[in-house]
Amino acid sequence: MMFTASQIAVLIKGQIEGNPESLANSFGRIEEAQQGQLAFLANPKYEEYLYITNASVVIISDKLELKQPVASTLIRVPDPYSAFASLLHYYQELKTQQLQGVEEPCFISPTAKKGENVFIGAFAYIGEVSEIGNNVKIFPGVYIGNNVKIGDNSLLHPGVKIYHDCIIGKNVTIHAGTVIGGDGFGFAPQPDGSFKKVPQIGNVIIEENVEIGSNATIDRATIGSTIIRAGAKLDNLIQIAHNVEVGTNTVIAAQAGVSGSTKIGNNVMIGGQAGVVGHIQIADYSKINAQSGVSKSIKIPKSAVTGSPAFDYTSALRSQALSRNLPEMEKRITELENQLKLLLEERLNAAHLH
Amino acid sequence: MMFTASQIAVLIKGQIEGNPESLANSFGRIEEAQQGQLAFLANPKYEEYLYITNASVVIISDKLELKQPVASTLIRVPDPYSAFASLLHYYQELKTQQLQGVEEPCFISPTAKKGENVFIGAFAYIGEVSEIGNNVKIFPGVYIGNNVKIGDNSLLHPGVKIYHDCIIGKNVTIHAGTVIGGDGFGFAPQPDGSFKKVPQIGNVIIEENVEIGSNATIDRATIGSTIIRAGAKLDNLIQIAHNVEVGTNTVIAAQAGVSGSTKIGNNVMIGGQAGVVGHIQIADYSKINAQSGVSKSIKIPKSAVTGSPAFDYTSALRSQALSRNLPEMEKRITELENQLKLLLEERLNAAHLH
Amino acid sequence: MMFTASQIAVLIKGQIEGNPESLANSFGRIEEAQQGQLAFLANPKYEEYLYITNASVVIISDKLELKQPVASTLIRVPDPYSAFASLLHYYQELKTQQLQGVEEPCFISPTAKKGENVFIGAFAYIGEVSEIGNNVKIFPGVYIGNNVKIGDNSLLHPGVKIYHDCIIGKNVTIHAGTVIGGDGFGFAPQPDGSFKKVPQIGNVIIEENVEIGSNATIDRATIGSTIIRAGAKLDNLIQIAHNVEVGTNTVIAAQAGVSGSTKIGNNVMIGGQAGVVGHIQIADYSKINAQSGVSKSIKIPKSAVTGSPAFDYTSALRSQALSRNLPEMEKRITELENQLKLLLEERLNAAHLH
Repeated sequence: MMFTASQIAVLIKGQIEGNPESLANSFGRIEEAQQGQLAFLANPKYEEYLYITNASVVIISDKLELKQPVASTLIRVPDPYSAFASLLHYYQELKTQQLQGVEEPCFISPTAKKGENVFIGAFAYIGEVSEIGNNVKIFPGVYIGNNVKIGDNSLLHPGVKIYHDCIIGKNVTIHAGTVIGGDGFGFAPQPDGSFKKVPQIGNVIIEENVEIGSNATIDRATIGSTIIRAGAKLDNLIQIAHNVEVGTNTVIAAQAGVSGSTKIGNNVMIGGQAGVVGHIQIADYSKINAQSGVSKSIKIPKSAVTGSPAFDYTSALRSQALSRNLPEMEKRITELENQLKLLLEERLNAAHLH
Repeated sequence: MMFTASQIAVLIKGQIEGNPESLANSFGRIEEAQQGQLAFLANPKYEEYLYITNASVVIISDKLELKQPVASTLIRVPDPYSAFASLLHYYQELKTQQLQGVEEPCFISPTAKKGENVFIGAFAYIGEVSEIGNNVKIFPGVYIGNNVKIGDNSLLHPGVKIYHDCIIGKNVTIHAGTVIGGDGFGFAPQPDGSFKKVPQIGNVIIEENVEIGSNATIDRATIGSTIIRAGAKLDNLIQIAHNVEVGTNTVIAAQAGVSGSTKIGNNVMIGGQAGVVGHIQIADYSKINAQSGVSKSIKIPKSAVTGSPAFDYTSALRSQALSRNLPEMEKRITELENQLKLLLEERLNAAHLH
Repeated sequence: MMFTASQIAVLIKGQIEGNPESLANSFGRIEEAQQGQLAFLANPKYEEYLYITNASVVIISDKLELKQPVASTLIRVPDPYSAFASLLHYYQELKTQQLQGVEEPCFISPTAKKGENVFIGAFAYIGEVSEIGNNVKIFPGVYIGNNVKIGDNSLLHPGVKIYHDCIIGKNVTIHAGTVIGGDGFGFAPQPDGSFKKVPQIGNVIIEENVEIGSNATIDRATIGSTIIRAGAKLDNLIQIAHNVEVGTNTVIAAQAGVSGSTKIGNNVMIGGQAGVVGHIQIADYSKINAQSGVSKSIKIPKSAVTGSPAFDYTSALRSQALSRNLPEMEKRITELENQLKLLLEERLNAAHLH
């Protein structure tokens, strides 16, 4: 997609300085942008780059006074960062809207229903009685099992797999390779040491406005539903076990894992590679530091924890600092022992003298 | 699939109370079941829900005396939980058995062999001279390389990838996106700081009754075989490196990893996000706690370890508790130092007086 | 592929003893090799197996004096291990070169370009204006988005997904299920507690001679590029966040993760399940131990760190050892307290006496 400076200026209601026909077809940072790119200058620290950038078009503040001539076409607005961000959103939407129609070959069950304005990529698979909402974009190689529902405007990237009976809300984005609805890890130990599978016949429900990264796994419930609430954001390679509930607007960073039946509250933040054991509750607005291992419920909202096992963040930092200084601490104990030994020997000698 | 209460009663040898024509097509928990669902009541704690549930059919104990009228059709059996569990298994088997035939388009090498009663989904790929056993179910988008063997009754979920020469036993289930037989991570350092690949020409052998979760990775051996023994259960996002052996009935929870050439014994339990270094042995019946890092062999069967680096579970818990109390411990040392300083000063003064 | 002993001898410039028509079609370890396999004997410790092996052909040292008769055909060379290793490489190359042509069905955009001698497997997808170099091997089910470049001789295993605009260099190998170019995890918090997506419009650049394992995830940059430099080797299930740079010849073991905008130097080694926070620098030749959590920049080259949070390796080992001995250390403090209490009481009594 190619835009002229004047087209861009209209979109962001800006004033042009320079050639209104300058063309931009991608975005760049002002310090490294190439010809044909659009950049912006918001932080005064970067002003020097304005005079040497190769960007064809640069969005700047309407208050900035130029100190040197500028080769790029300028577009002046009150808030260059917001104007740039809104262009990015506009660009992404345009790109997504261009995805239309059904590529062949793909496999769509005759009993599946699809809404209007849907894109279905090659090698995508849509199972029996599944329902695909309006404006849904299904990339190549996506697998949708039987009796799945995909809400309006949702976007499934290449190779996403959604097992039977799962429900995906509106405006959900799932990145490549993620698996929704695989069997929960449930096996009953037998007297001979072997394990018998516990059938996992629940499903996964993902509410609206959720985004999930690449190669994550969200298991179906044993009975009932594993639930990801509205607005939650999950990063790559995350594990969500059966019957877990992740609250509204909760954010989970890459490679973290939540064990079975645990209920994560709303607006919780979980750092990368953190783990949460099963069957506990995490209060709203809690913060769980990266690599923490949470082994019991967090009952007080806005708690912050770290460490494995995790405990209160501030105390943990103090303990960690002392833990590093253990050699020093041990020296102090040895010194005390030596001094005390001396005193005790003197006392003994004194006793003998008496 | 739709069943009447009387059909269900025959399967579990129960006595019907109420309408024998009530229909159920799925399962629910008694406290949240909807019309058309089958539930059970085993725990007396939940009896109140029996009188208000919307479940169409409920399995209850043949000894339970009703305290109020019940809208659902009841089926009475000696052990409601076992009856319900057996129905789940029956239902799962029926669902799997329904999978039949070959969906188009798929890619099956003319030199591949397939047994009876096999399901091959659309976009599945079966390479040269590979052999698919009887009753195997290969979901859409599965990749099976050349010279692979898949044992009878095994089930490969969507997008599973099995590299050439690997051997999968009978009754094995592998969930979506898991990769079996990728190259082990072997690179020889060169004098210039670069690395030269060590070809990985072994394979992976997965024995019977193994279940593996979603998006896991099990690497092929450098030479010889990486082996997962009969009955082992591996969760999602697990990493098994080249030449590892995982013992019979060993259970490994999500996001755990085992490094190259390590031999995990039988009936071992490894917690989530735990790591085991390479070239060590883990004795039978060992328990490795979640997030542990096992850095040396565990030689005594039934050992339990935790921590990173991992050591004896009971000692580790005591050390962890003390570790949290380090600020307290440091106070005690400072107090000792102050008191001792006082004593030493007095002693010095006394010496001066003499 | 089947080779006679004499064909093998020509390849490695060795001398044959025994039947030059003996056939080998795979490789084995001398202690477990079967008929039809080629083995080698380099370590004298294994000489006993030479006299009982079932291997059809064995490569041995030209200096070895046989103590018993040998059934296998022998090939004598100055350095058996190197000769064997070169055969492995030769075998791998042959296998890869055999991959030719385009399997059907696959999806290749009319605007995509492909070089000579390319293999494209069934169900592979190649988007608009993408460019595939010479000798590239694209396995079944690979997804390549729009405007992607794949350098000569690169190899993409089954189900690899490469999002639009990414650039893959020459001689790159990517294993099954890995996702290159998914959106970085960028969301701006809103006043109501929800998050607004920050469009991720950069790309991923992977330079030449890089190898990446299975089911890894490398996110595209917000703006600019996430870069994996030449010769880097990344294992399975690794997470590389947006705008990260991984240096030349750096090695990262399985399940490790690097957060956004961090710059990892050259020749760094990162252990399995380690994590590195965002926006820091790691100096060249640093070693980060498995399961470490690196929370601040490592500024001195050749540093070694361990622990979470990570610090100097040698100090950390000493602290970890003391940490395990905390119960012992606490006993010493209690003993000191008791002794000192005694002394203080005596002093008090003495004072009273005076």
